[in-house]
Amino acid sequence: MTNVAIYGVGLIGASFGLALRQAGFTGEIAGVSSPRSIEAGLARGAIDRALSFEEAASRADLIFLAQPISGIIEALHRLAPIASPHALITDAGSTKRAICEAASSLTGATFLGGHPMAGKESRGAESADPDLFRHRPWVLTATPNHPVAEAFRHWIARIGAREIILDAATHDRLVAWSSHLPQLTSTALAATLHELAPNASAVAGPGLLDSTRLALSSFDLWRDILATNRDEIDRALEALIERLQRMRANPEPDFATGADFARKLRTPTAS
Amino acid sequence: MTNVAIYGVGLIGASFGLALRQAGFTGEIAGVSSPRSIEAGLARGAIDRALSFEEAASRADLIFLAQPISGIIEALHRLAPIASPHALITDAGSTKRAICEAASSLTGATFLGGHPMAGKESRGAESADPDLFRHRPWVLTATPNHPVAEAFRHWIARIGAREIILDAATHDRLVAWSSHLPQLTSTALAATLHELAPNASAVAGPGLLDSTRLALSSFDLWRDILATNRDEIDRALEALIERLQRMRANPEPDFATGADFARKLRTPTAS
Repeated sequence: MTNVAIYGVGLIGASFGLALRQAGFTGEIAGVSSPRSIEAGLARGAIDRALSFEEAASRADLIFLAQPISGIIEALHRLAPIASPHALITDAGSTKRAICEAASSLTGATFLGGHPMAGKESRGAESADPDLFRHRPWVLTATPNHPVAEAFRHWIARIGAREIILDAATHDRLVAWSSHLPQLTSTALAATLHELAPNASAVAGPGLLDSTRLALSSFDLWRDILATNRDEIDRALEALIERLQRMRANPEPDFATGADFARKLRTPTAS
Repeated sequence: MTNVAIYGVGLIGASFGLALRQAGFTGEIAGVSSPRSIEAGLARGAIDRALSFEEAASRADLIFLAQPISGIIEALHRLAPIASPHALITDAGSTKRAICEAASSLTGATFLGGHPMAGKESRGAESADPDLFRHRPWVLTATPNHPVAEAFRHWIARIGAREIILDAATHDRLVAWSSHLPQLTSTALAATLHELAPNASAVAGPGLLDSTRLALSSFDLWRDILATNRDEIDRALEALIERLQRMRANPEPDFATGADFARKLRTPTAS
């Protein structure tokens, strides 16, 4: 792995470039992105140079797709006829089934679905952080027997991330619960208060701040995620609605199980 | 206001004692509580001495009830025949209608409902903090024309809290939305994950931590709150459920209104 091309030099793409450099990667890191993002990525030292879509496709042995999901899917279709047959293409998309499905059209290059579970409230290469992935899960959808895939997994470990192998369907089911349901719940709570009890903010405590932090997110970031994980998200929403209905009659039992889950979530595991 | 009696020397009661002292109060601060809480309150300097329920009732000109709601209601009934007629009785209960109703049986002493909106995850006088109320709302249900009430409001300002006047019904309606609904939502989310997707914690990010922090709360702390604000909480739960149902079909519009509420909540106001 000597030539890396980062498609989409935003927060995740630029942080990956910085993380590779910090971990000792000495190969080339090229960026394929908008002029504004290229400029920011070069200024931060996250990329060495800009390449066109086609130049990067033929030159890179690791192609890292860090656009929004719809951009990743579009890029996979464009890469299919032109990517180097020896290349590994991987991605950072927040859902995996639609992306892995799109990648099935690849004939030459090998695809490995990925999801580094890291982020922050600010966006863009300007906010990039070489430690963004440290101690965070990095989901991979497979462990292909491929020299660049082995090197890539080595670098994931070197930048401090925690590799987790999950097939695309399992990934999408788990993140529907761990990420998409909390997002929609926070948005629903904040939107309901906005409409029915805007004055409640006068008596708000830290709990309401915690509960509405995710609601700050923009739909732009969620459009593709919700569109590509609709079935799993709907199952999770339905289960939460049923639970809330039951709690209207009898909230007590859920406090013990809820506290149990919340405590375990905060308990470091051996993994 | 020279003799304060704190009934219930837990986190809130002991923090009030420490806050008064830090703000320059030089009168006596007595505690009425369990032997263990009295010991901890004395050790922290939150109270000067222990008194029996009856001794404190006849001696204090400010009676501060900081037990759980059911303890406050029971204390009000016991205080009715014995409290000094010149005393002001106030409280720190998290709901106000049931407490104000119980206080209507008082004939001599004057009652002023209160709710200092502060707390922390740890409990007991051991966790008391003289700055617990700083910059936090302190709801009062009225502004009685009473010398001790005027002094008490002066001390609320001196300890850094932000006085908000709300009648009991308005208070209970607003906290149903700002506090009780977020609690039940967090508990429901955590309990649902516990039952249907315990493995989701393997791919959890900071969003799930935020969303399940309130779920750590024990039902012990919530039993009385839920029992004394059932109607308002049920209305809020019903509205949230309706919103979640609508979001299953079309989540987009709620992102803008939710983000708007969440941003305003984080914007300091002139008040």
